[in-house]
Amino acid sequence: MKVAVIGDGGWGSALALTLARNGHAVRIWGPDAAYLADVARTRENPRFLPGVKMEGDLGWSADPESVAGDAEAVVFVVPSQFARATMKRFAGTVAGRGVPALSATKGFEEGTLRRMTELMRDEWGVAAPAALSGPSIAPETARGVPTAVAVASADAGVAAFFQRLFAGETFRVYTGDDVTGVELGGALKNVIALAAGICDGLGYGHNAKAALVTRGAAEIARLGAAMGARAETFAGLSGIGDLMVTCFSPQSRNHTVGERLGKGETLEGILGGMVQVAEGVRTCASALALAKKHGVEVPIVEQVDAVLHGGRDVREAVRRLMGRPARAERDGGAAG
Amino acid sequence: MKVAVIGDGGWGSALALTLARNGHAVRIWGPDAAYLADVARTRENPRFLPGVKMEGDLGWSADPESVAGDAEAVVFVVPSQFARATMKRFAGTVAGRGVPALSATKGFEEGTLRRMTELMRDEWGVAAPAALSGPSIAPETARGVPTAVAVASADAGVAAFFQRLFAGETFRVYTGDDVTGVELGGALKNVIALAAGICDGLGYGHNAKAALVTRGAAEIARLGAAMGARAETFAGLSGIGDLMVTCFSPQSRNHTVGERLGKGETLEGILGGMVQVAEGVRTCASALALAKKHGVEVPIVEQVDAVLHGGRDVREAVRRLMGRPARAERDGGAAG
Repeated sequence: MKVAVIGDGGWGSALALTLARNGHAVRIWGPDAAYLADVARTRENPRFLPGVKMEGDLGWSADPESVAGDAEAVVFVVPSQFARATMKRFAGTVAGRGVPALSATKGFEEGTLRRMTELMRDEWGVAAPAALSGPSIAPETARGVPTAVAVASADAGVAAFFQRLFAGETFRVYTGDDVTGVELGGALKNVIALAAGICDGLGYGHNAKAALVTRGAAEIARLGAAMGARAETFAGLSGIGDLMVTCFSPQSRNHTVGERLGKGETLEGILGGMVQVAEGVRTCASALALAKKHGVEVPIVEQVDAVLHGGRDVREAVRRLMGRPARAERDGGAAG
Repeated sequence: MKVAVIGDGGWGSALALTLARNGHAVRIWGPDAAYLADVARTRENPRFLPGVKMEGDLGWSADPESVAGDAEAVVFVVPSQFARATMKRFAGTVAGRGVPALSATKGFEEGTLRRMTELMRDEWGVAAPAALSGPSIAPETARGVPTAVAVASADAGVAAFFQRLFAGETFRVYTGDDVTGVELGGALKNVIALAAGICDGLGYGHNAKAALVTRGAAEIARLGAAMGARAETFAGLSGIGDLMVTCFSPQSRNHTVGERLGKGETLEGILGGMVQVAEGVRTCASALALAKKHGVEVPIVEQVDAVLHGGRDVREAVRRLMGRPARAERDGGAAG
């Protein structure tokens, strides 16, 4: 099958490799034609997925028409801040064609607070877009290390279509219909990972981090419930599964940013030296806005936002989190 | 307040230190009088908590009467296989006195499958025993690194009593009434940690381990539900909180045993060289028996049991887990 992967970052490249392993003809879009020509020549993506040989029926182009013009499936995996603009570039080749479309991007559109599958409706008129998320460090998936993810769509046929498309020996796909839950889990875990990284950077131990991440899971589930997602989704791969790998694996970018903040570096200094996007930095403000809109308490998101955008000292932020009065766990104490 | 801590292992010693920090007079019981005399003299517990200075109002004795005779609270933290026999030794000093009693032991009694607080009822006639569990690597807690745990009792007054007793600057206690849930989470996570360790020992990555642990969390919650525990307990500190630290921290004994199994060592060889108990090895058989009794599917527990006690090769066990047909997540696929 001909598949368009819109996005040449680490996760986009890992998903493209997964599809190529299944025998599909994959065309990858990126914004930088000169860079893509190098990738196509060397079969390596040194900027976003260094050290991985890009083998299989793969092609690269910065031209939407040659990537998606005849695609039978579209996989969207561009950082959220470029999402709508990129979708607009693909409107002529994708919109109204009824081609199955899936988002693997994590985050919200700033300002509108819309999820990526909502942008697919806005820009491409996709009736039942799918979302893919789960514990998936890109280099592991790219190397064929076993990975399991969730794919959700309001249309069970669309979810099953993408399950067949992606599933293979080392890539397991579980289907569901809770698109909101899958997208929220994927986006919000990056904010909790920033907090977990801060905790590590300050030299706290695993006990404190586990307590923080447990509260983070409750925070995500609470906001999700207010937004119509199902609690069981947050208990699954795209919820706690992704959360634990992002908060406990040293390979997570968001965790790394948090860790460097915890060690006293400035956000500007950290981001200035990074090639790839740490989505959590951007997601944090949107998550806080969503929580306000839905009247949900999100103390961890609040403290991370105060550190990122309000100049709050990391020690003071952690003190405020730890210093909350001890309560019964089910009243929103530890699990809240 | 005078507190008896029955058990001189790593976790018992860490809890004793936590109590001493709060100004309590703590007496610790262990089975080996000569060893305890050394601990009392050197103020170190090299066998179970090496490198930590045991400071505060602490005393050690192998005599039940001098440890618990005038205790106003009893903390029980002896490995599960010695639990009932040890309780019997304390029957004369504790039973029928109405003294508040808490279990911090993780596991079941083999054969009867009874939980530790149930043994406290059996042997001491404690009406409303408490259970304490949560993400708590003993050396971290002992060193005063921030830790948060759950304490549950059917009697809210008892839970609040132990919350006041333990809570301090670096030790947070959240109360609840789901004793079954807290004890199950604490016991069963050790079995999942063995599986996570096997995964690591075989060289699988973080993606696969996170997927496994997510399924493990669902397995624990499913068995818990059948046994009358509440789902929300497993979403809290004593559930996923403890599970993630045990499966992702390199300091967990059960994880280490699993990792060495994954690398090809035999169970006999591993356990022969260990001073401390890896509770998961013993808990596994009990967990499987409980699952059968309650008619609950526990594929991870089954495979760990087959490796530990059925001679199954670790690769074959993992293959059987990974090889289950892909399903919808909520039908017991990834989250099941």
